[in-house]
Amino acid sequence: MDRTAIVSVLEEFNKPLQIREMKIPELKPGQILVKITAAGVCGSDVHMYEGRDPRLALPMCLGHEGVGQIVEMSGEKQTPLGEKINEGDMVIWNRGVLCGDCYYCTISRQPSLCVNRWAYGIHRSVKIPPHLNGCYADHLILHEKTDIFLLDDRDSAVYVPASCSGATAAHAFEYARPKLKTGDTVLIQGPGSLGIFLVAYAKASGAGRIIVTGGTQSRLDMCLEFGATDIINRHNHTPEETKEIVLSITHGFGVDVALEASGSLGAVTDGMPLVRTGGAYITAGFGEPAGSVEFPWFENIVRKNVNLQGVWVSDTRHVLEAVRTVQMNYENFAKIITHRFSLEESTEALESVASREAVKAVLIPPNKKFMSVKALTLPV
Amino acid sequence: MDRTAIVSVLEEFNKPLQIREMKIPELKPGQILVKITAAGVCGSDVHMYEGRDPRLALPMCLGHEGVGQIVEMSGEKQTPLGEKINEGDMVIWNRGVLCGDCYYCTISRQPSLCVNRWAYGIHRSVKIPPHLNGCYADHLILHEKTDIFLLDDRDSAVYVPASCSGATAAHAFEYARPKLKTGDTVLIQGPGSLGIFLVAYAKASGAGRIIVTGGTQSRLDMCLEFGATDIINRHNHTPEETKEIVLSITHGFGVDVALEASGSLGAVTDGMPLVRTGGAYITAGFGEPAGSVEFPWFENIVRKNVNLQGVWVSDTRHVLEAVRTVQMNYENFAKIITHRFSLEESTEALESVASREAVKAVLIPPNKKFMSVKALTLPV
Amino acid sequence: MDRTAIVSVLEEFNKPLQIREMKIPELKPGQILVKITAAGVCGSDVHMYEGRDPRLALPMCLGHEGVGQIVEMSGEKQTPLGEKINEGDMVIWNRGVLCGDCYYCTISRQPSLCVNRWAYGIHRSVKIPPHLNGCYADHLILHEKTDIFLLDDRDSAVYVPASCSGATAAHAFEYARPKLKTGDTVLIQGPGSLGIFLVAYAKASGAGRIIVTGGTQSRLDMCLEFGATDIINRHNHTPEETKEIVLSITHGFGVDVALEASGSLGAVTDGMPLVRTGGAYITAGFGEPAGSVEFPWFENIVRKNVNLQGVWVSDTRHVLEAVRTVQMNYENFAKIITHRFSLEESTEALESVASREAVKAVLIPPNKKFMSVKALTLPV
Amino acid sequence: MDRTAIVSVLEEFNKPLQIREMKIPELKPGQILVKITAAGVCGSDVHMYEGRDPRLALPMCLGHEGVGQIVEMSGEKQTPLGEKINEGDMVIWNRGVLCGDCYYCTISRQPSLCVNRWAYGIHRSVKIPPHLNGCYADHLILHEKTDIFLLDDRDSAVYVPASCSGATAAHAFEYARPKLKTGDTVLIQGPGSLGIFLVAYAKASGAGRIIVTGGTQSRLDMCLEFGATDIINRHNHTPEETKEIVLSITHGFGVDVALEASGSLGAVTDGMPLVRTGGAYITAGFGEPAGSVEFPWFENIVRKNVNLQGVWVSDTRHVLEAVRTVQMNYENFAKIITHRFSLEESTEALESVASREAVKAVLIPPNKKFMSVKALTLPV
Repeated sequence: MDRTAIVSVLEEFNKPLQIREMKIPELKPGQILVKITAAGVCGSDVHMYEGRDPRLALPMCLGHEGVGQIVEMSGEKQTPLGEKINEGDMVIWNRGVLCGDCYYCTISRQPSLCVNRWAYGIHRSVKIPPHLNGCYADHLILHEKTDIFLLDDRDSAVYVPASCSGATAAHAFEYARPKLKTGDTVLIQGPGSLGIFLVAYAKASGAGRIIVTGGTQSRLDMCLEFGATDIINRHNHTPEETKEIVLSITHGFGVDVALEASGSLGAVTDGMPLVRTGGAYITAGFGEPAGSVEFPWFENIVRKNVNLQGVWVSDTRHVLEAVRTVQMNYENFAKIITHRFSLEESTEALESVASREAVKAVLIPPNKKFMSVKALTLPV
Repeated sequence: MDRTAIVSVLEEFNKPLQIREMKIPELKPGQILVKITAAGVCGSDVHMYEGRDPRLALPMCLGHEGVGQIVEMSGEKQTPLGEKINEGDMVIWNRGVLCGDCYYCTISRQPSLCVNRWAYGIHRSVKIPPHLNGCYADHLILHEKTDIFLLDDRDSAVYVPASCSGATAAHAFEYARPKLKTGDTVLIQGPGSLGIFLVAYAKASGAGRIIVTGGTQSRLDMCLEFGATDIINRHNHTPEETKEIVLSITHGFGVDVALEASGSLGAVTDGMPLVRTGGAYITAGFGEPAGSVEFPWFENIVRKNVNLQGVWVSDTRHVLEAVRTVQMNYENFAKIITHRFSLEESTEALESVASREAVKAVLIPPNKKFMSVKALTLPV
Repeated sequence: MDRTAIVSVLEEFNKPLQIREMKIPELKPGQILVKITAAGVCGSDVHMYEGRDPRLALPMCLGHEGVGQIVEMSGEKQTPLGEKINEGDMVIWNRGVLCGDCYYCTISRQPSLCVNRWAYGIHRSVKIPPHLNGCYADHLILHEKTDIFLLDDRDSAVYVPASCSGATAAHAFEYARPKLKTGDTVLIQGPGSLGIFLVAYAKASGAGRIIVTGGTQSRLDMCLEFGATDIINRHNHTPEETKEIVLSITHGFGVDVALEASGSLGAVTDGMPLVRTGGAYITAGFGEPAGSVEFPWFENIVRKNVNLQGVWVSDTRHVLEAVRTVQMNYENFAKIITHRFSLEESTEALESVASREAVKAVLIPPNKKFMSVKALTLPV
Repeated sequence: MDRTAIVSVLEEFNKPLQIREMKIPELKPGQILVKITAAGVCGSDVHMYEGRDPRLALPMCLGHEGVGQIVEMSGEKQTPLGEKINEGDMVIWNRGVLCGDCYYCTISRQPSLCVNRWAYGIHRSVKIPPHLNGCYADHLILHEKTDIFLLDDRDSAVYVPASCSGATAAHAFEYARPKLKTGDTVLIQGPGSLGIFLVAYAKASGAGRIIVTGGTQSRLDMCLEFGATDIINRHNHTPEETKEIVLSITHGFGVDVALEASGSLGAVTDGMPLVRTGGAYITAGFGEPAGSVEFPWFENIVRKNVNLQGVWVSDTRHVLEAVRTVQMNYENFAKIITHRFSLEESTEALESVASREAVKAVLIPPNKKFMSVKALTLPV
């Protein structure tokens, strides 16, 4: 009897996602079938839903963030830590699949920049074998080159953000860490999932003051639980007032490192003047083109001898750091999973993220399969 | 009326220290007179007392670790953070005075290696102006090139270790930090004051497992309060058992970074095999020659591609990091000040350190001056 | 009998410099009297002459670049390499004087960012003791905190650029070096003195291709002698053509590191798209405010994961690197000293730099003093 | 008609290698058949020949260093630089094949430490498919995970050393480069192929003085052509004299970085005292266990705050750097290929390396196949 998967499919931009039943194909050597236990709804999913991401080809099963349980393996596999992976294991994985052959994989040691990198739920339509290419589904087939980590038996939904924002934040913090001394001051712009992870990394890097700026008070308050020492709501303070506060905290110097996690050009122009002479500005919040920024070059960059770093996605190292960070702060991270939806509520889930109502929303696929769903009209 | 200082003086090696009264000279431009509120008794003071440190010339007022209150300033002075220093301020300072002119100060950016560096309580006998050159006294005169930091109004004795072991540990950890990812495993050999600070830095660097090895159970237990996750008492485990434990904790890899804080060559030879391939070994516990070490070069260093770093003393950056670390963990650091002595008990204080009875012993000079003390027979 | 110095003084912006005779004061402890043998005319001197540099207070003896011979020393002094300095020695020095006490000097190890840094010929008017504060003169008094290096007996004028553009270029290249592998491609924007030094550093860092862009063909040609492999004259190629050339040289990747040495915002916006994904852009050519730059943030910085570094002035380490670079390429550097003027021709010298006629212009003060000059009306 | 390969096989340790004819199998997907044009005879091949390398299983076709021409490809392949590889191309490759999945490949970015790494001519006996696993042959089959670079049409034999000693030297120099300033002093111990490459890298890193120590005068002389400034023959100077020479060159400091390329423990103990305080010692010359080293820990490591780095093999990045270095110094590298042998002279080639007669010996396989050779008695 054929096995089937339940998949939530984006068939038309800005139209409700459709629940479809798809045949689970025979696994090719190296492939791994995973039962998704929780899938994350990322802010960039909203952009994809709206047709603003050029990487997408329809029909698409969205979902690049996921955790699940191994159902079937075609061959043996180990984690990067050398642990044998078995059927039944709860796992998380690097959402990006790397070629291992290009300049960035073999020469420059910047694997997140792999020229052939593709991500589940973004680059491969459901038309492309093995079809189960996204996490908004009850099953996913992992490519043989996917790096996989074992999870413990706590609620797997809590680990979902580790696969995207947690990993990207780890990548951003990789640039911050060597620039920080014990007790230094870190500024984080944007208290979403990315920013919350940055607070956790800053705390775990010995920062003495962790300042978070943003516009959603409930999220700013949540940052305090992760170790933020100061929160500034931009609705209550002008940029000038924010600068005064930051300077008063930092003996007039400005922050040692600022990390942008908002995806807003306004954050960039407001944030650079808050960095001390000789400090660093790291920009990690942009997932797509956002237009041009304009700022005084000499004053912001040259005279202050500032180091500025762009951050694009993440690699396997960062997923491991994110998973460990959740493990060490499980109770706090459990609180950021504010919304849980069924697969059928995929569209509502996207809306909860678009409205910033949810800090983090996850889809929980059914444990039992649907009795009756409309067959997907695709040659699969 | 002449002002006088009470000084505990080492006049002869291995003989009790003598309490002497010395005239406080007029301050030269840039000098600062400090009332010592607490002075640390360092393990290396014991070596000096025993005549094993070639840097020493008698008669000597020992004490390179100290905190105190500004009594008088000859000129203006700021902290490195730009704060104005005033009479009455509680302060701590870099125990080493650097020339600012040599290769290490101006070219290689390794100021702790300054070729003209000297430290209070070590390099300058009481015969050398301004005579009040050590912290085993109720007054000290700071040299104009001394870097000074302000303290808060909590018990100043708790900050004493920041000026020596805390700073040296910060220097050692400066090499560890860029090699660590979130959740990595750190091994610390030696649970004394140096090792305890290393535990605190490891905790503040996101280490997932912090293993401490040593021979004094009470100190190992204290490390747990600072964040150690695993302690191994070498009286209960052979080196082979220790290796097994470490490998079992680290998926068979070995630790990412090991830090030696014991000053024992046995720690070096036992510790290097515990480092993972591609890891780092940092040796910070030696203050004086300790003989030759012998180990297999290919197996320990080459095949494992290990990075090994020697650590000598510290600089002003490290004092700041240590002070901040005490500030962020004040309650715990208060516990390591296990013994307090009067100046008259200086010799007993040295004995409490020599016997490892004290984790950290401090001298608390009198607030009022002695009524009658034998005049020091020196041309001061 | 009073000793006198001949000084070229800027008394009014945009007016010819005046030759004045000034009394050479008694040296204070630590001061060193130098007979200037050659002084550099920097592009920023032109800005100062025009009143565009807010650091300047008139009357001013310009000249932050100089070499000379020790005439008199008040006390002993060593070079940072530990060599004793003697009267009669030919020397060069760090044009910036650092405090040694501030955050940047003692904590962050970024001494060029010293909050109290001042430079000969820029920050101290001739009214400020010891009055001989600039290099457009036959004598200069070095401050006791000045770091000094010995020169060999070759033409000292050739070493002049080492004290400013050579040192700043060394600072810029300090950020480039750890990002370069053997045979990588470096882009340098601007073939002036700064850019020429950058070519020399790139050559001495194993770069395989060194591309220089600029608008003055003779300077571009000169870069070829220093090791440039490709020169692109912007008068002959549109930015799009330049991009095509750069991509064709670099397998379509773009350059590994680009260094801006032109002080032009157009260079910034043209240059960033030439950097490969994961590469670096270092901006060192700006000495004063130049307005706002505008560019696409996501495309230039985030998606390409680019590292961008601002560079402000230099420190003593960089002067040493620059001097060594001239020593190793003496014959080539001799060619860039295209113009030599007497002190009386200071204004013409500035014009030769303003017009870009000179690659590098130097003033050669007289060996004998002027017989008759108008006394400077200053209380000195 | 079956295609056959001519292979020089080590069937018994310390016995002459045997010329065998082997069938060339059908290529599996991803495999590439190469016609070897030159194979290097490495010092470690001598150890393998003598049975001292535990990685070896007989019968073995030695030869981990090789260059050749693509004969047949099973599938498409690009270089890490994105160039399409075609039949007929002259190529070189990373001698080590990495798994791409382990901790070192995916997490720690130290791919040369891959736990599953294997090398042509070392780890895989001729019994293991595809049997043509070593370079002492006229044909080799490259594994699909092998990273390959294109060569130009100059004599391919000159590129042979780039695949082993040149790559390992690049790996060693990767640790040296960030520690060097322009004009610094580098010491290289051992003037063999590894040391010669280190001289080239030091030259290409702006070193001002490059000192080489060794025992073979002709090789030391050859180092001068690559840029060494000082050579010291240990047969003419005691270690004390060598130290005096080094200190006299370095203002009494010692060298900034020393690189061991001799594989001798005596070099280690002699070399560490030549490193300046704050300098680095990098050991790259050992390919197998060599016993224990004994030295004073405090004096060599701690007091001098020395950084010591072990170096094990190399990765693809290093092969690229080595190839580029040969390209940029082709005429000089052509001189180090001092001996050329036919495949039938494999044993003599090993002897020429064992006796240190050859700087670099290569095997040049026949362009035409042998008419009559004894069939290899293996089930292949």
